[in-house]
Amino acid sequence: MAAQKSPDSSRRSDRSRRAICDAALALVGEVGYARTTIEGIAARAGVGKQTIYRWWPSKAAVLLEAFLAESARRSQEVGEAGEDGAYGIPDTGDLAADLKLVLRTTVDGLNDPVSAAPTRALAAEGIIDPALGAQFVENLLEPQLQLYVTRLRAAQEAGQVRADIDPRIALELLIAPLTHRWLLRTHPLTHAYADQVVDLTLRGILVQP
Amino acid sequence: MAAQKSPDSSRRSDRSRRAICDAALALVGEVGYARTTIEGIAARAGVGKQTIYRWWPSKAAVLLEAFLAESARRSQEVGEAGEDGAYGIPDTGDLAADLKLVLRTTVDGLNDPVSAAPTRALAAEGIIDPALGAQFVENLLEPQLQLYVTRLRAAQEAGQVRADIDPRIALELLIAPLTHRWLLRTHPLTHAYADQVVDLTLRGILVQP
Repeated sequence: MAAQKSPDSSRRSDRSRRAICDAALALVGEVGYARTTIEGIAARAGVGKQTIYRWWPSKAAVLLEAFLAESARRSQEVGEAGEDGAYGIPDTGDLAADLKLVLRTTVDGLNDPVSAAPTRALAAEGIIDPALGAQFVENLLEPQLQLYVTRLRAAQEAGQVRADIDPRIALELLIAPLTHRWLLRTHPLTHAYADQVVDLTLRGILVQP
Repeated sequence: MAAQKSPDSSRRSDRSRRAICDAALALVGEVGYARTTIEGIAARAGVGKQTIYRWWPSKAAVLLEAFLAESARRSQEVGEAGEDGAYGIPDTGDLAADLKLVLRTTVDGLNDPVSAAPTRALAAEGIIDPALGAQFVENLLEPQLQLYVTRLRAAQEAGQVRADIDPRIALELLIAPLTHRWLLRTHPLTHAYADQVVDLTLRGILVQP
């Protein structure tokens, strides 16, 4: 039987993991993904290199965990702020307004220079590495997309969105154009653009546009 | 004054460049981008490493040139096959059918296992490296997107697409969902999906859906 970890040692582990994740995010933001090394992360987090290798197979894996931790923290904050403790897209009854609010916030997040470098690095790694990409989609992206499914389904039940629309596909017309502009930097990613994408998409799926 | 290159030496250069580009595409397809090296490309192309470094600053730059050459070759083939010698999206008067044809072909291209690895590698590099990304967009992506602008504008002139629609934005609702599925591997990229994206988008932009 494995020895039980003492509460102290488990607290030390948690602290180290958090320090390593924070160091990874900060380093990628400062020097870029290519020049971020496990050695650099270890030095900044004040741990030995072997500590990182014991827990993660690669720097991409460290970065993914850092993102998941960040995302969990944010969901909890948002959830705590909401009256019913739920995390999701608001439902004021005005689908266009609700979606514009959320997509504008998404635009602001994507344009944030602090998070841009690590987010891009993780996306690029996931594009190359199918296993990492699958984790990224399953743990980080798909739960966010499901919030759109929930909101669009509510609009269907309210008789606003056509019954024959598949919300899981309709949401891609909302989300993908923003991701496309952001990843490929084709054109500026603005609130006005988010609004236009919502207007065009809703015209295609509403009962009475 | 610089010495004029002899026709022979210029022909040798062209042959070497072509061999290097072909080697880069083949290697990335076989061993992946991360394990493709300038040394490996040189060995496979039968040239010295210094020959590559003289012409390109990085393996990503070699790959981009290989793609541009491929794309130019393909455009020329398609152009030669067309009756009027022009390259573009067909205009049969049936916008939905024309777009479905092109997007289904795009789906087939993205799902082609031979070109998938180098295309993903180039996309991922462009996401991380703004200078390479800008070249990718300017030379490879934007000329393709302009074909949609041309086709959508013709549909506007034919009174099919609403006059207040900006074709450069509308095309992103057609293209971005496919790119999103392909890059992030969220769900299968199929002909049926391409058709659904066309139907949803057109409903949003047609005068009479």
